[in-house]
Amino acid sequence: MSAIMEETMEGAAAGQVVNGVNVSQLLETVTAVRGTPEIAKFRFRARNRWLGGGRNRTTIGDFDGALQTHRRAQPFVIEEDEPALLLGDDTGANPVEYVLAALAGCLTTSLVYHAAAQGIQIEEVESEYEGDLDLRGFLGMKDGVRNGYESLRVTFRVKADAPEEKIRELVELAQRRSPVFDIITNPVPIEVRLKE
Amino acid sequence: MSAIMEETMEGAAAGQVVNGVNVSQLLETVTAVRGTPEIAKFRFRARNRWLGGGRNRTTIGDFDGALQTHRRAQPFVIEEDEPALLLGDDTGANPVEYVLAALAGCLTTSLVYHAAAQGIQIEEVESEYEGDLDLRGFLGMKDGVRNGYESLRVTFRVKADAPEEKIRELVELAQRRSPVFDIITNPVPIEVRLKE
Repeated sequence: MSAIMEETMEGAAAGQVVNGVNVSQLLETVTAVRGTPEIAKFRFRARNRWLGGGRNRTTIGDFDGALQTHRRAQPFVIEEDEPALLLGDDTGANPVEYVLAALAGCLTTSLVYHAAAQGIQIEEVESEYEGDLDLRGFLGMKDGVRNGYESLRVTFRVKADAPEEKIRELVELAQRRSPVFDIITNPVPIEVRLKE
Repeated sequence: MSAIMEETMEGAAAGQVVNGVNVSQLLETVTAVRGTPEIAKFRFRARNRWLGGGRNRTTIGDFDGALQTHRRAQPFVIEEDEPALLLGDDTGANPVEYVLAALAGCLTTSLVYHAAAQGIQIEEVESEYEGDLDLRGFLGMKDGVRNGYESLRVTFRVKADAPEEKIRELVELAQRRSPVFDIITNPVPIEVRLKE
């Protein structure tokens, strides 16, 4: 049985838009996926070009989902750099800062969509992120010091038409359902190859 | 003993800028960190605000490193959304696409910086990223289906003043040193709290 389906049937009426999320479309998606699980298979893509020093430009164009390829009219362009202390020109956030942004967007959207499915109106969601990283990992200077974040801390502030206990449940649910939270807290295999 | 120090001493001369990276500054950093390991401790930060539906705005302002707080004059603003198929307005890349961007920037910069330390001139680096994600995880529809990427694939094209074997070594080294590669392939603990 679908968890979100149960939530939705208990809560919001079909046709309703809650938190800017079309709940009847969400219901239709769940029903469609139950009939044809292949609809749920997504493939996201990116291309990257090095621009010199610590600068990179990533473009995000199409993705596959619901058995089709979806092309944006214009690709999204993401500029990355390193601050001067890390020998860059500081023309954009750096890659580990983009990890924080990805986590922020994903936890928040997960919270808001699942609240919508339950018919809970959210007024405001703000959050803060902090990650500790020891550069000796990247520099290869000390065994046992990892390259990436040692730990991350997140603080949420949520204003909603719901008691505090319900808001706590939503913050928990966001962690249990967020794709990026999963990607960061659990291992994802990455295969890297060199094209000649 | 410092791996990057050994590489650097074998390769590039001090004062040299290779691949847009100031190698003598890199050497100074390594020397400073060897004397005072606390210099290598970084803390990155982000703030996020929900804008309705699947839209989020993350701002990246200051970070701590080398025993100081570094403030950007203007914070970097990162806009996230979901495509129509995922019930958004498609005004920005979505959070799992930002994960690909973060990985792209980090692997590339890791490759280029370590090449610079070895005095290897890089001409071009391009790469492509692909990630498979089953929406049934996010929807809570099926046990055993994870929320995040099941797997990621990366393809690099590198033009450099080096034999192919050396380029292969650099692509391997990028994976061994990249913070975001570590964050994605290994678990990072995340602590989430609700502020009243």
